[in-house]
Amino acid sequence: MTNVYLKKKVSRRIENGHPWVFANEVGTVDGPLDGGDIVSLFTHDKKFIGKGYANPKSQILVRLLTRKKEEEINDQFFYNRIQSAWEYRQKIGYTENCRLIFGEADWMPALIIDKFNDYFVLQTLALGMDKWKPAIVAALQAIFKPKGIYERNDVPVRELEGLPQIKGFLSDPFDTRIIINENGLKFYVDIENGQKTGYFLDQQDNRRAIQHIVKGADVLGAFTYTGTFEIHAAHYGAKSVLGLDISPSAVEQANQNAALNGYADRCRFEAVNAFDVLKAWAKEGRQYDVVMLDPPAFTKSRETIQKAITGYKEINLRGMKLIKPGGFLVTTSCTNLVQPDLFLEIIQMAAKDAKRTLRQVVYQTQASDHPIVWGQENTHYLKFLIVQVV
Amino acid sequence: MTNVYLKKKVSRRIENGHPWVFANEVGTVDGPLDGGDIVSLFTHDKKFIGKGYANPKSQILVRLLTRKKEEEINDQFFYNRIQSAWEYRQKIGYTENCRLIFGEADWMPALIIDKFNDYFVLQTLALGMDKWKPAIVAALQAIFKPKGIYERNDVPVRELEGLPQIKGFLSDPFDTRIIINENGLKFYVDIENGQKTGYFLDQQDNRRAIQHIVKGADVLGAFTYTGTFEIHAAHYGAKSVLGLDISPSAVEQANQNAALNGYADRCRFEAVNAFDVLKAWAKEGRQYDVVMLDPPAFTKSRETIQKAITGYKEINLRGMKLIKPGGFLVTTSCTNLVQPDLFLEIIQMAAKDAKRTLRQVVYQTQASDHPIVWGQENTHYLKFLIVQVV
Repeated sequence: MTNVYLKKKVSRRIENGHPWVFANEVGTVDGPLDGGDIVSLFTHDKKFIGKGYANPKSQILVRLLTRKKEEEINDQFFYNRIQSAWEYRQKIGYTENCRLIFGEADWMPALIIDKFNDYFVLQTLALGMDKWKPAIVAALQAIFKPKGIYERNDVPVRELEGLPQIKGFLSDPFDTRIIINENGLKFYVDIENGQKTGYFLDQQDNRRAIQHIVKGADVLGAFTYTGTFEIHAAHYGAKSVLGLDISPSAVEQANQNAALNGYADRCRFEAVNAFDVLKAWAKEGRQYDVVMLDPPAFTKSRETIQKAITGYKEINLRGMKLIKPGGFLVTTSCTNLVQPDLFLEIIQMAAKDAKRTLRQVVYQTQASDHPIVWGQENTHYLKFLIVQVV
Repeated sequence: MTNVYLKKKVSRRIENGHPWVFANEVGTVDGPLDGGDIVSLFTHDKKFIGKGYANPKSQILVRLLTRKKEEEINDQFFYNRIQSAWEYRQKIGYTENCRLIFGEADWMPALIIDKFNDYFVLQTLALGMDKWKPAIVAALQAIFKPKGIYERNDVPVRELEGLPQIKGFLSDPFDTRIIINENGLKFYVDIENGQKTGYFLDQQDNRRAIQHIVKGADVLGAFTYTGTFEIHAAHYGAKSVLGLDISPSAVEQANQNAALNGYADRCRFEAVNAFDVLKAWAKEGRQYDVVMLDPPAFTKSRETIQKAITGYKEINLRGMKLIKPGGFLVTTSCTNLVQPDLFLEIIQMAAKDAKRTLRQVVYQTQASDHPIVWGQENTHYLKFLIVQVV
C-alpha cells in the first residue's frame, strides 16, 4: 500500500478528526498514487494517522475512512459501516425513512444514502468512494433486501473528481415514483427526477415543529417544492394554505400530494416567482397568520456568499411584511456557507428593515439522522427557525 | 410624570429594543425619582423612547414596560399583558403547565409567573414590578380563577432592589404540594419549598428528546433533583435507571415521583455527591448506555465564569468516561453566563481529554414558553445537548 506523509507544519485539523487531506498538506508520497487507491496516511515523522482513498485529480488528495491501523478497507468494511449506521438510525428513532449514510458524519466521506422505506438512493461523490459502489450495493442488498436501489450521481461536483454525471438503477428496475409516510401523511417521491435524492428528509422533524402555530391560521408558503411543509400545515389544522413555487412541475406534484392526503380543498399551490409575488402582495396589504420560507441556497461557493446574504435578507423582509402583528415566520437556510449565527443576524437585519420585533420560538437544525460533527462545517448546514413577528 | 433623559453618547442597545437603562447612561432627570415610580424615557434630544419603572437604589435605574406613548401603565396594562402572554402560550401549545410570564421576553421586566395547572407561582424581582403585585394577582384571578397563587420571592437578587426575601400565599391558602402532568407522567411539585418556583418547566420539551436513545438502556443520571429526566427515561423504556443527587430531600421526592408513576422497580435514586461518585465509578470501569447530566450553574457572576467552565468540563469528562462506545451523553447548562458556543467548546474539550469522538444528535434550548429575544442574553440561558460518544 502506498504511504502518504503530511508536511511538518500542517493544521491540527486532520489529527483532531477531520477526514480531508488537501494536496498542499502532503509532503512525500511513497509509492504509486492512482485515482481511487487506498493509501495509508502518516505524520511527517511517520506516526500512523489512518487509511483512506486518494485522488491525485482532486484538491482533496486523501479522504480518510478509518483511523484504525488493523482495519482493512474491503467489502466487509463497507458492510460493517452501513450496518452500524443503520443501527444508529434505529436507536435514535428513524426507521421507515432516513438518511442512512451522511458522508463524513458516518465516516464514509462523499457517500450519501437515503432510505425511503424499501427503496434506496445513493450518491458517490468522489472517485475513491465510487469505486466501492458494488460493495455498497451488495451490503444494502444483504442488510435490507430492498425493492430497489437507484443512483443519483447526476451532480456537477462529481466532475471535480473526474467522474461522469449519471443516474440509473443499481438493482432490477422499479417504478421510481414511490410513496412514503411521514408524520402521518403520505408523499410522492420521484426518485428519478426529484431534486437531489428525490426528497428532503432533513426537514422531517422541522415539519412537525409548525404543529401548533398553524392551527386555524391562514398560511402562505414560498419555495414549496412538492409542498410538504404546506400539507403538514393543512394536516395540523390551518384554515387555508397557499404555496408558491416557480416550477410548474413542482406545483403539479404539490397539488397531487395535497390530493393524496385529502387536503386539496384547503391547500393549493401556484407556479409563480415568490420574490415578485411577495413584494406585490405586501404592497397590496395582504396579511397572513403564518408565512413559511424554504428558499434554495442562493450560492454554492464562498466567493458569492454576499449573494446568499442578500437573497436571504430580501426574501425574509418581504415575508415579514406579510405577517399580521403577533403572527409567525417559519424560515430556513440549507447551506453550510451561511452558519447559524450569520443566519440569525440576517433575519434580525430583515426585522429591523421591516420595523418588526421578533421573539424566537424554535430553532433547530437538520433531523438527527443527519448527525453533526463539530469542526466539520459541511455536516452543519440546515437552519430552521420559527419567530413570532410582533 | 418624571422625565428621564439619556446621555448623548449611550449604546444603541436601548433604542434597539433592550429594556434596561443603567444609571450611568442617564443624563438628566426632570422631576422627583422615588423607587418604583413610573417615568418617561427620552433621548438626550427629547425624543420619546418609552415608559418604565425606576429604582434609584438599583444599578438598573429604569426598566421599560412599553414603547407606546399612548399606553398608560395601570392595572389594565398588567391585565392586558398577562392575557396576551396567555394567548401566546396557548397558540404555541402550552396549556396545562407553562411559564406564563418570562420577564423581559414578555415585556414585563423582572416578573416571572409559572402556571402549574390551576396554581400560579410568581416572582417580582424588582421594586417597580413588586409594587404592581396587587394588579398582577387581580389579573390572574380574573383570567384564570385559579385554585391558588403563591409568591416565591425568597431570592437574594431582590436585596439589590432594596426588597426583602419573602414567600407566602397571595390567595387563600392551599396545599402547596401539588401534582402536575407532563408528557404523560405525573410529578409532585413542592410550590413552597422546591427550587426556584418549585419545578423546572424549561426542560419539558427536552425531557421528550431522550425518548429513543434510552430504550432498553442502562441509564445513569446525575444532579437529578426530583428525578424528572430519570422517570422519563423509565417511561420511555430504559432497562434500569439510577439517579444521583446530593440532597436527601430531593432524592426522597424523586423516589416518590418514581413510585407515583409505577417505576419504583426500574428507577431508583441515591443521595451522593455526583462529582465523587462518577470519578470513582469510572475508575472501577462501570459503563452505561446513557449518562444524563443536569448540573447547577456553578457560578452566578461574570467574575467567576472560569469556575463554571471548569465545573462543566470536569463533570462532562467524568460522565463521558462512564459511557459505552456508541452510547449517549445527555448534558445541559442552565446559565446565560455560558453561552451556547462556549458550552459546546467545553464539551469538545472534555471529549478530547476523555479521548472520545462525538456526534451531535440533538441541540435545543429551553421550551418555547420561555421565548428568546435576541440581544437580551438573559433570555437565552438553557443549553440541552445529546451527543453520541464513540
